Amino acid sequence: MANKGLDRVFNPRTVAVVGDKRGQDYFWLKSLTTFQGKAYSVQVDEGEIPGIKELGFENYASLLDIPEPVDYVIVSVPRKVAPLILEECIRKGVGGATFFTSGFAETDTQEGIGLQNTLTEMAREAGFNLIGPNCMGIFNPSIGLRFSPMQYHGHGGKVAFISQSGTHTLLFSLVGEASGVRVSKSVSFGNAVVLDSPDYMEYFAQDSETKVLAMYIEGVKDGRRFYNTLKETASKKPVLVWKGGQTQDGARAASSHTAALATSQAVWEAMVRQVGAININDMDDLIDTIKALLHIKPIKGPRMGLVAMTGGQSVIISDAFAKAGFQVPEFTPESYRELASFIRLVGASYRNPLDVSWSLGEVDRALRILHILEKDDNVDTIVLELNKTFLEEGVSLKKRKKFTTDLIRVLGEFRERSSKPFFTIVIPCNKEVEALNLSKALMEKGIASYPTFKRGAQALRRVADYYLARSV
Amino acid sequence: MANKGLDRVFNPRTVAVVGDKRGQDYFWLKSLTTFQGKAYSVQVDEGEIPGIKELGFENYASLLDIPEPVDYVIVSVPRKVAPLILEECIRKGVGGATFFTSGFAETDTQEGIGLQNTLTEMAREAGFNLIGPNCMGIFNPSIGLRFSPMQYHGHGGKVAFISQSGTHTLLFSLVGEASGVRVSKSVSFGNAVVLDSPDYMEYFAQDSETKVLAMYIEGVKDGRRFYNTLKETASKKPVLVWKGGQTQDGARAASSHTAALATSQAVWEAMVRQVGAININDMDDLIDTIKALLHIKPIKGPRMGLVAMTGGQSVIISDAFAKAGFQVPEFTPESYRELASFIRLVGASYRNPLDVSWSLGEVDRALRILHILEKDDNVDTIVLELNKTFLEEGVSLKKRKKFTTDLIRVLGEFRERSSKPFFTIVIPCNKEVEALNLSKALMEKGIASYPTFKRGAQALRRVADYYLARSV
Repeated sequence: MANKGLDRVFNPRTVAVVGDKRGQDYFWLKSLTTFQGKAYSVQVDEGEIPGIKELGFENYASLLDIPEPVDYVIVSVPRKVAPLILEECIRKGVGGATFFTSGFAETDTQEGIGLQNTLTEMAREAGFNLIGPNCMGIFNPSIGLRFSPMQYHGHGGKVAFISQSGTHTLLFSLVGEASGVRVSKSVSFGNAVVLDSPDYMEYFAQDSETKVLAMYIEGVKDGRRFYNTLKETASKKPVLVWKGGQTQDGARAASSHTAALATSQAVWEAMVRQVGAININDMDDLIDTIKALLHIKPIKGPRMGLVAMTGGQSVIISDAFAKAGFQVPEFTPESYRELASFIRLVGASYRNPLDVSWSLGEVDRALRILHILEKDDNVDTIVLELNKTFLEEGVSLKKRKKFTTDLIRVLGEFRERSSKPFFTIVIPCNKEVEALNLSKALMEKGIASYPTFKRGAQALRRVADYYLARSV
Repeated sequence: MANKGLDRVFNPRTVAVVGDKRGQDYFWLKSLTTFQGKAYSVQVDEGEIPGIKELGFENYASLLDIPEPVDYVIVSVPRKVAPLILEECIRKGVGGATFFTSGFAETDTQEGIGLQNTLTEMAREAGFNLIGPNCMGIFNPSIGLRFSPMQYHGHGGKVAFISQSGTHTLLFSLVGEASGVRVSKSVSFGNAVVLDSPDYMEYFAQDSETKVLAMYIEGVKDGRRFYNTLKETASKKPVLVWKGGQTQDGARAASSHTAALATSQAVWEAMVRQVGAININDMDDLIDTIKALLHIKPIKGPRMGLVAMTGGQSVIISDAFAKAGFQVPEFTPESYRELASFIRLVGASYRNPLDVSWSLGEVDRALRILHILEKDDNVDTIVLELNKTFLEEGVSLKKRKKFTTDLIRVLGEFRERSSKPFFTIVIPCNKEVEALNLSKALMEKGIASYPTFKRGAQALRRVADYYLARSV
C-alpha cells in the first residue's frame, strides 16, 4: 500500500511546482524542462508570472485550479506558507509532495519546530506522502524528472540513492555519472517527518529497475523499523549505507542540518554488517563500491594476481592489497614457464605482482599475460595497472590512438569472457585528463577502474566481505 | 668529504651517457637535451652512432677519449659490461656514476649477485660514488639534468626526494609538478650498493635549496647509521619517510625490486616518529603533506573553523576533521552576531561548520566570513570548501570568470595576511578539469588545496603532529 502510493510519486505523469521564482533563477522549473510528462507552475506573485510563462510553463494561482490530477508537487514557498500549500495538496488529492522549504526543526527554534509539527500532523492525519521538508525530493532520469538543471536525463541506471542530504543526492548523480554509475531513481528526503528511510527502502526493494540500493543517513527515528527494513531489503539486493555524523562534531552538524539525533558509530556499523549491508564512509567509497558490485564478478577467494607497470609500483600495489586483507601468492610453475617465453628477465620480475616494465605496449602481449593469470590456479582475482605515464611509452606516437582503442576493446572482451573477477587501476599521475578519459572508456566496456591502488583494494575488500557474508 | 663529492655529482658541468641506443629510443640522451652543461655519448656500436649524432651529441668510443673531465656518468649497458665501464669511470676520475643497468641482486640469481659484488668491491676500493645499480639516478631541474624526457626543467623547487624506486622518483616529479610541488634535486638509487640513503640524507641536510626532504625507502642496510642520520637530518628540516614493503607481500615485491630486506612496519614507524620525521603511506599522502608543510602556516591548536558550501557537506567535513583528531567548536558570540548581519537564516546554520549554502557567490562576503573566523578566539585553523558544482551557482554566466579570478586573488591575500593557518578543499565532483585548474590557480597563490575533506584532514594531522612533537 505504501509502495503503491510511492509508485505514483516516483513515476509521475503530472507535476506542479509551487512558488518557484526569479530570485532562485527558476531552478525548479528549469530542472523540469526535461520532464516527459506535464509540468505546471503555481505562483500568485504577478511579478513572477511573466518569467514563468517565458520558460513555457502554464501558471495557476492555486494547485486546486490545475485542470487535471497532479501526481507530484514540489513546494518552494516561505516556511509560514508551507501548511497552506500542504492543505491544498491534500484537498487536490495529489500523490505526494516534496517540501524544499526549510527553516524547520533543523534551525532549533520554537517557530521552526512548531511549523514542522503542524506539517507532520496534517500529513499523518491525511495519510499524505510528504517528502522532507528541507530537501530536494525525487530524481528520476528516465522520465526527465530532476531537481537540478545540472542533472542528466534520458538513460537511467541501476542504482537507487536514498539520502538525507540534497547535496549528496545531487553529487551522487553528478559524480556517479562521471564515473559510469547512473541512477535508477533517487530521493533527497531531509528532515523525514512523515516518509522516512524505511519507506523508501521498501519502495526500492521491490523496484525492478534498481539493482543496488545506496543510502546516506544522518539519523534514524524508529530504530527497530529501520533495522528490520534494512535486513529485509539487504536480503533482496546489495545495500550500501553511508552514515553522516560519525563523530560528535559530525553529529552536531547533522543535527543542525536535518535535526538528526546522534548514534554510536560502532553500534551502527555492527548493525549494518549484521544484516548483510555494506558500511560506507564517504562519496568516493560509495561510488567505488558500487562500481565493484556492478562491474566486478563475485569474488571467490583472497588470492590476487597483480600486474603492475614498474618495480616501484609492484611494491605499492602489493602493500595496498595486503593491507586490505588479500594475499599476493606465487603463481604456478606453468604460469612462470609460459611468461618466460615472451617476457624478458632484466628489469622484470617473475613473482607476483608481475612487473611488466614498459612491456604492455603490445596489445597481444597484455592479453596473453591476462590469459595466463586466468588459467592460474593460485589466482582468484586479476588486477591490471594502467599508468598513462608509462602505458604508451613503447608505442610510437602515430600508433598510440589505435593502441589504446585496441587495448580497451580486448580488455572489455577479456572481462566478459574471463571466469575470474577482473578490474583496472588507472593512475592519473600528471595526466589527469587522459586518465579520466581512459577510465570512462573502460567503464563503457564494463571494466571497473580506480585511480589509486588503495581505493581499488578497499572497494574489493568491501564487496569481498559482502559476498563472504552471503555465502556463509 | 662525502658531501663535497656529491656536490660535484648533483651539480655536474659535464655529463656522459654510456650505451644509449635506438632500442630504448635514446631516452637518456633525449632527457639530456635540456642539460645546461656539456653532455657526451659513449657508444661503440657503429649502427647506433648516426642516431646519436642526429640528436646533436658528440660520441666517443670510450669515456677515456672524452677531451675534458667528466663530473657525472650514466651507464646503460648490459650487466656483464658494467664492471668494465665502472673501471673506465674510475680511471677517468669522474665525480660519480648512475648505473641504470639492472639484473643484479634483485633477480636473485648467482650471476646477478656475483656481478653486483664485483661492482661494489671495485667502487668501494676506489672510493667511487656509485649510484644504483638498477636505478634512474639524478634529477636536477634547475640545470636541466633529467632522467626522463617527461620531466620539467628550468625552475626548480624546494623539495628533495631520495628514492629506491625510479618510478616513484619520476612520478614524484610529475605528480608534484601538477600539484604545485617542485623538486630541488632528486635521486633514484635502486640497489644502493655503495651510496645509500644516509649518504643522500647527509647531502640534502646541508643543501640550501632543499627546504623539505622526502624519501621512499624499501630497505636499510645499516640500521644504526640510518637512524642517526635520519635523526640529525630531521633536526634541520622536515623529513618525510615513505616505506615501501609495509606488508609481507609488499616486502617480497621490494626484495624482487631492489633486493631489500624486510623490516617490521610497527618498529619502523615508531622509529621515524621518535626522531621527529613524518611517516607517509603513499604518493598522495606524500604530496598532500608537503603541500601542508610548504603552504600552511604552523598549526597552533586543534580547533577548526570550517566553511562548507551546503548542509550535507557540513556533516562530512566535520566527520573528516574529527576523525583526524581535530575539534570543531562553537564560534564566539561576537562572531555569530557579525555573521548574522549578512548571512540569512533559512537553509544556513550558525554553528561550525558554517554552512554558507550557495552564498559564497560574492567575493566580499567570502572574505568577510574568513575575517570573522580569523578574529575568532575559538579557532586555530581555517578551512574553506570550494565546490565547483556550487561555487558559481549564484553568479551570472558573464561574471563567472571574473568572479573566480577575484576570489582566488582575495584568498591569496587573505592567506598571506592571516595570522592563522588557512587552506582549501576543492571537491572535483563531476567538474574534474575545472577543479584541477582551480586547485592549480590556488597553489600559484600559495594556497594549499585538497580534493577531499579526508585528504585535507589527514595532511593537517600529519603536520600538526610534526609541529607538536617539535614544540615539546
